[in-house]
Order: sequence, then C-alpha cells, then structure tokens
Amino acid sequence: MKRLLKVGVAGATGAVGLKMLSVMSERGFPVESVRAMASGRGDARTVPFGSLALPVEELTANALPGLDMVLFATGASVSRQFVPIAVAGGAVAIDNSRAFRMEDGVPLVVPEVNAEAVRRHAGIIANPNCSTIQMVLALKPLQDVVGIKRVVVSTYQSVSGTGKAAIEELREQSGSTLAGEPIISRVYPHPIAFNCIPHIDVIDEDGNTREEIKMVLETRKILELPELQIAATCVRVPVFHSHALSLCVELESELAPDDARRVLGEFPGIRILDDASDAVYPTQLSSSGTDETWIGRIRRDASVTNGLWMWVVADNLRKGAALNAVQIAELLLDERSG
Amino acid sequence: MKRLLKVGVAGATGAVGLKMLSVMSERGFPVESVRAMASGRGDARTVPFGSLALPVEELTANALPGLDMVLFATGASVSRQFVPIAVAGGAVAIDNSRAFRMEDGVPLVVPEVNAEAVRRHAGIIANPNCSTIQMVLALKPLQDVVGIKRVVVSTYQSVSGTGKAAIEELREQSGSTLAGEPIISRVYPHPIAFNCIPHIDVIDEDGNTREEIKMVLETRKILELPELQIAATCVRVPVFHSHALSLCVELESELAPDDARRVLGEFPGIRILDDASDAVYPTQLSSSGTDETWIGRIRRDASVTNGLWMWVVADNLRKGAALNAVQIAELLLDERSG
Repeated sequence: MKRLLKVGVAGATGAVGLKMLSVMSERGFPVESVRAMASGRGDARTVPFGSLALPVEELTANALPGLDMVLFATGASVSRQFVPIAVAGGAVAIDNSRAFRMEDGVPLVVPEVNAEAVRRHAGIIANPNCSTIQMVLALKPLQDVVGIKRVVVSTYQSVSGTGKAAIEELREQSGSTLAGEPIISRVYPHPIAFNCIPHIDVIDEDGNTREEIKMVLETRKILELPELQIAATCVRVPVFHSHALSLCVELESELAPDDARRVLGEFPGIRILDDASDAVYPTQLSSSGTDETWIGRIRRDASVTNGLWMWVVADNLRKGAALNAVQIAELLLDERSG
Repeated sequence: MKRLLKVGVAGATGAVGLKMLSVMSERGFPVESVRAMASGRGDARTVPFGSLALPVEELTANALPGLDMVLFATGASVSRQFVPIAVAGGAVAIDNSRAFRMEDGVPLVVPEVNAEAVRRHAGIIANPNCSTIQMVLALKPLQDVVGIKRVVVSTYQSVSGTGKAAIEELREQSGSTLAGEPIISRVYPHPIAFNCIPHIDVIDEDGNTREEIKMVLETRKILELPELQIAATCVRVPVFHSHALSLCVELESELAPDDARRVLGEFPGIRILDDASDAVYPTQLSSSGTDETWIGRIRRDASVTNGLWMWVVADNLRKGAALNAVQIAELLLDERSG
C-alpha cells in the first residue's frame, strides 16, 4: 500500500500552482498533508485544495524541511534557490521551471514517454516545457514504429502559459478593443488582443527564442535522440487556454495517415479527433480542461519523402504543466510502493 | 498620357470590393467613371468611392458591356458566370476568385514578382490567394539570388479573409465570451473567438484544405517553378485583419540571415522589421492598413542545410486582395500607354 506523503506546492498562487493543487485533489493523490507556499509577492491568503482552503505560507528555506515531496511551480530563479534546499531537507523536488531541465542527472519526464527515467533521479525531476510535452507525446509513437528524422513545428500558444497577468491582459485588451478604447500593454511587448506575437521568452544572438530552443533541446533529451533535427517557431496567439502545434514530421520510413492514426490513437494520453471533411479536429477551446493530447488533421506531407503533418492540441496548464508534474509524482509513489 | 477608363467593380459591397474602391481612390487611379455592382444579396444601396457615394447596381449580364475594365471581388461561382460576359463585352477582367487562377492562358500576377505575365492575358487576369501573394513576395528575391528547394509554411490568417460576416462573428463571439454569455457560430464550424481553427475552405480526400492546395499550386505558377516542393498548413486565428506566415525555406545554396535581410529589403513591396532582441518584428495589428509585406525574425534554420526561417505579415485585404488587383490594373494602364 502507498504511504501518505507530506507534500508542498511552491508557487501555489500562480496559474500552474493552483492547477497542481486542483489536479492532485481531483486525482485523489494520497497526501497526509499539503502545504501551499509562495514567494514574497503572493497575492492570495488561501488557495483551494478540494474543499479545503489552504493558508499560503511564505516560501523560505525554513519552510521546506520535513516534506516528502515538493512540486515547484516557480520561475527559474526561485527554483534555483529553493529546489536544492528542499532536496537537502529530504524531499524529492518536481520542478516546472527550466532551471534544471538540461542538467545531467536530472530526469526530464513525460510519464507516457519516458517513465523509466524517473528512477535515475538524485532528488530533482524536471517537468518539461509545455509545448515540448505535447510534441513529444505525438512524436514518441512515430519514433517507436518507424523512426523520425526531422521535425518542423510552428506553435499557436495561449496566454495562460505566461500566467495570470497575461490572461487578465488579453481579457482587458479585448474588451477595450471591442469598446473602441485605447489598449495598454503591460505583460507583452505588443498588444495580444486580436494579434499574434512571434516571440516567447528571450531571444538569443542567433535570433531564436528561448522557447524555441527549449523545444529543440528538451525533445532531444526526452526522446534520447541527441541528433534529432528540429526547427521550431513559437507564436503567442490571443487564446486563453491550450496550445496548438502545426507539426510536420519527416519519418525514417513510410507510415500512411491511417496507420499513423492507429499508432497514435493506441498510445496512452493521446486522443485522435480526425474527420476533417466533417470539420472534426481538436481546437484549443474544445481541448481546454481535458487531460489528453488531441491530434487531428493527420495527412501526408507530399513535399518530402515520408512526410506527415498533424495538428496537436493540449491544455498547457494541465498536460503541459500541472497534470504532467502530478503524473510524475504518481510515478514516484509507484516506485516507493513497488 | 494615360487615357481615362470606364471601370466596374463587381462584388462592390463585400470586404474586398469596398477595399478595391478605396484603394483606387487613394491611388488616384485614372477613371472616367466607376460603377459598383453586386449580385442579388447586396446589402448596401451606395458604397463610397473617395467622397462620392456610388449607387450599387445589380450585377447582371446587361450591366457589363461598355466597360474597359472590371475588377471582380466575387466568389468563384459568380466570377465563372460573369467574367466571360465582361470580357466578351470588351473589358479586361481582373478576378480575385479562384475560378480562373490555374487556367492556361490566364496570368496569375503579383506585380512585384511577375509583372511581365500580364502581357500574355486574353481578357482575364487572376489575382492570387491572399496568403500566396505575401508568400511569393518573400520567396521571389530568395529564388532570384540562391534558388529555393522546399518551403514549409504554417499560416495565422485573420477573419477578414472570410468576409464581413466573419468579422462580425469574431466581434460578437468575443463580446459574449467576455460577458460570460453563450456564443453562436454561424460562419465558422467552431467558435473563432479566443480559438484557432485549422481549417480554411473545403477539405479533400487527402486531408488537405483547398486553401493549402492554393498555396502550393498558385506559388508554383507565379514563380514558374512547377516542381517546387511546398507543404502548407492554413489556420484561422482570432485576429481581425492581416495574415501572418511562419515560413521555413530550404535554399539551394547558403544565404546568411544578414544577406537575406538585405536581399529581401531591397525588393519592391517588402519592408524588413527585424531587431528581435528589442521585440522589433511585424505583427498583424501593426501591419494592418499598410501596403507592404513585412518580414521579421529572419534566422537560420539549423535543422536542414541552407535553411532560413522568417515571419511574413501583410494586410490580406490590401496586398492580399484589393491592392494587388489595383496594382494589376495599373500595370495594364502602363501597357496601354507604353
């Protein structure tokens, strides 16, 4: 039987932290106690965990010892500071930031794809980037069956990936636009209402954004394909929840669209919704609030040998962040009880 | 000196027809007279042409003879019916629909790219698809300098490409969403407010949309590259005006991003806006109402030999439709006066 754990959620007042608490509660994650923590700027006194209202504690070094497991929904700098303290205090840390993802010895895990990697952890397990999670889910079954050679992806990412302030900004700017009033940009460098912004995270000297580089490097690490060629363009679109990918895969050998549908549909965590002539395919609105990664518009890409196109949609706060982290936590439970 | 023309605009009450009239007026297109025509459903009694209010006539076979030039902003079935009548009556027809684009003997023209093709017309000149126009503008200078081998494009297309009812639908659904009220879809098969729809025009048995096939076939015809490999995914985004492209080009030989910036920037009709580290790149909002095709985020695509990525934005009603048609009309004037 699984023992009950003392769990902490750091960054509990943010969009991902709140979702971690609700996903743990929904799934009946076996906790003895849950503590909600936030760094200085926390704007809520309590956060919901099922029917409980958890008091929000300040995230300090003294708050962390004594916990069995801490889920971090904090930014990279806060994670860098507090994850090692949590681990030193005896906890396993599951970190949603980019801080440790590419470090040797830190498993980067999507449970349906590389569950076995969790066994190699030394205290820290990293949760991948949101767009990466749904992309590797779509790539893994294809890699297993025929192999993949090159990936070209353009994203359609919702504002909830940026956080609560961005959700508010899209809401405010949209209302102002409809009312014919001037709009104000605080979170994004350009208006996001009724506009797309081809710029997520900082841009390096080669002109790539950090989000694009994450999609390349994290995918290679998760799939254990260090040479895989990936080209990514990441675009923020005026959508509240869920990310979509226009995903073009060059396979090592042929796989007909019908076979791809079957192979993808049999994979855990994936749902196929693909009858395009009847307008049946996933959208961000239809996928929000669900746990699955939805795939549609599967078709041959005739411009290259063994090319396959697909449209991949998932809720970025659930599968792209909180749900994946809780699934990792569940894997650890299985390890302990196994 | 150019002689003054008797010009007709068919479909004058639609989004593109209205824009054709305003673009002709703005550019001082030399008309003796302009007649505005619309098929049965026309919802306006008059339409503006500069400071004039033109009466809207019903588009009938009898209305067309006696005109020198007719710009058709009608759908394919109306164009198929009335374009031949206009031509038989002595006019040159510039048609914005897909009806004649792929016919032999019908030039498909983007003036900056293949102006010389207009000379080969036999009464009909076709205006390309909106997304195709801005894509070929970005491809042509690269083709001229180093050659292009394969193109992978994902689009972010605004609702104005669908027409006035779609603009109203986005506005209505957005307001309802913000008010927490139920939304109604009339124009699109799924909600477009705060959602992306990977489906533009009908879908064939291979799973490609007609919009995607247009981008392939029309680009090949305009660039006179019948073998060019192009993979396209077309997505409607909740934006009112302007289309954006995430455009990945495999070149025949190397072209560094700085050289690409120079080559593209020297091409007529293109403006470079590319200092990504300072968040300088075009967006749909910033490009709306302009005549240029704007390019930014030019960078190397390291996943393939001689790969180049860019973000290409243009006003789909102006350069993507009405402006391009009026520019074709201007080419014809030059022919006549030449």
